[in-house]
Amino acid sequence: MSFGATLGYMARIAVTDGMANDAIALLEKAGHEVVSQFIEPADLRAGALADFDAIIVRSATKLPADIIQQSGRRLKVIGRAGVGVDNIDLQAAADANIPVVNAPRASTQSVIELTIGHLLACIRHIPRSDRGMREGKWEKKAMKGTELQGKNLGLIGFGRIAQGVGSVAQLLGMEVHTYDPYLPPKVAKAQNTTLHKKVDSLFQACTHISVHCNYNQETHHLVNAERMSLMPGKSIDGIKCGNHIVNCARGGIVDEDALLEALRSGQITSAALDVFETEPVPKGNELVQHPHFHGTPHIGAATLEAQARVGRDIASAVMTVLKGGKADTTVNSHLL
Amino acid sequence: MSFGATLGYMARIAVTDGMANDAIALLEKAGHEVVSQFIEPADLRAGALADFDAIIVRSATKLPADIIQQSGRRLKVIGRAGVGVDNIDLQAAADANIPVVNAPRASTQSVIELTIGHLLACIRHIPRSDRGMREGKWEKKAMKGTELQGKNLGLIGFGRIAQGVGSVAQLLGMEVHTYDPYLPPKVAKAQNTTLHKKVDSLFQACTHISVHCNYNQETHHLVNAERMSLMPGKSIDGIKCGNHIVNCARGGIVDEDALLEALRSGQITSAALDVFETEPVPKGNELVQHPHFHGTPHIGAATLEAQARVGRDIASAVMTVLKGGKADTTVNSHLL
Repeated sequence: MSFGATLGYMARIAVTDGMANDAIALLEKAGHEVVSQFIEPADLRAGALADFDAIIVRSATKLPADIIQQSGRRLKVIGRAGVGVDNIDLQAAADANIPVVNAPRASTQSVIELTIGHLLACIRHIPRSDRGMREGKWEKKAMKGTELQGKNLGLIGFGRIAQGVGSVAQLLGMEVHTYDPYLPPKVAKAQNTTLHKKVDSLFQACTHISVHCNYNQETHHLVNAERMSLMPGKSIDGIKCGNHIVNCARGGIVDEDALLEALRSGQITSAALDVFETEPVPKGNELVQHPHFHGTPHIGAATLEAQARVGRDIASAVMTVLKGGKADTTVNSHLL
Repeated sequence: MSFGATLGYMARIAVTDGMANDAIALLEKAGHEVVSQFIEPADLRAGALADFDAIIVRSATKLPADIIQQSGRRLKVIGRAGVGVDNIDLQAAADANIPVVNAPRASTQSVIELTIGHLLACIRHIPRSDRGMREGKWEKKAMKGTELQGKNLGLIGFGRIAQGVGSVAQLLGMEVHTYDPYLPPKVAKAQNTTLHKKVDSLFQACTHISVHCNYNQETHHLVNAERMSLMPGKSIDGIKCGNHIVNCARGGIVDEDALLEALRSGQITSAALDVFETEPVPKGNELVQHPHFHGTPHIGAATLEAQARVGRDIASAVMTVLKGGKADTTVNSHLL
């Protein structure tokens, strides 16, 4: 089966930040020509996209307004092989009548698993224990931890990833609390979570907080010193489990200076971040050196499965648009 | 309510390896006298237990035959605040008509959570990522991992802990395979797992193996070079996820030399142990230095919750025997 052949139309597709081989094969089998190589910003500005019907980027390629305006009339669709579209000017694309499509579901399972991994690594001191063992120590007493069971988990944002994290947490015996002003309350209720109308009350109720919202002006430093100070440190089952923070969503939602201070004061017992205010994290960053902190370098979607899925999903969405259809993952529909 | 008062009988109870304060309070509230301090082996041999009705130990106090025989007629029950009873001569206790009771369920949840934590820390390189970040690196590409979803998890032993691990794994989308020659097959079937009659076929079917059996002659080095070489490295969903080994059960079940060799050859992609052939692990151990290995110092039961529960459970079991009853966690029933 070849969509290209069916349509009698072969598109030229620029893949500038790499893509899984399977996904490229999918485009080629459909009859399209794929040119997979990075294009320098200067070349983009000089009109390098004029010969392409579609471009598929990740985060390295930036598509601001001037580049999109420069791209001529042939460009019909911009694909983002991933979730975040901060690197694409959605309005400029809409003005040029170009839908921007992404692949928001591809990494859901990977981020759910990393979040649970970080939560458990936090409360059981897994990276800290391992460091001790590599130094020839046997710090059994110092590594006493707590269970997730019987604790309140607060999820900031209750989209697909948070819902998956919530299900695992509930199976482990946690009580799940949620805060998401943009979701119909019935979603939180359907999963038997306690929905909070104010984020402060979520912090008051929960010893464990995991971040699952977008980054924007509203969520910038949403996890700050004041809110962390509201966390109870003691669980509903009476255990002094301390307070724990995990963020596998977007950098900048957690105030990292405040987090370091709270780790130092003991108000926060452990914390794990996969995303940071500045990435790559600059050398000498004190937060990543704190003994009760552990970090991973933005690997939420960095699995073989998520990358294969993201390729398939974005190839499919791009081909839908090339065929004249509307992809259900179009992110600038409201502007078109 | 006071059992001691009800019975008109106050027992003297030696607690030699420490116990949670709540549990000591429980015994005292029941009217018993608790003497909480370590007793040297020489003093035990000299008859230090002659004045006690009960002794509650963890693993530090050893109760071989000669000490039990020396302990006079007053001793009515030996409590092990935990699971393993390797430190107590069960036959000698039975010969002296002394039930040995333990607290096998107290740490179940803690070990389940640690096992899932280790599995996720393995496949997402959590400790290795954190080491890189502490060195000022941003190794996003090197830390590409895989998902648990879509993989076969092999559980060696399918008791309470393995059943709990299996439930979480199933929720995450794993297919669970089990091997347990001592369990009625209906237990494995009730949880929709694939029961293997031979352990070799479990290894052939699974890219992820977690150990949940006792240590004995039969299970010594059960995870060996030959069996690890049977693991497929590729999952049922076609992903080259490699092979992964976790052991939070007992040291000695995994052949550590063979594991190190398999990590070096790449047959095993990652491994995590909470228990080791020699504990504390001697300095200079090469396995704990391997980049794709991470370890914790036997902390499966090292949580506030498990320790509180173990205290309550063992206090309750000891008081049951002191009242003339039979504790359902008596481990030498078959010898009495």
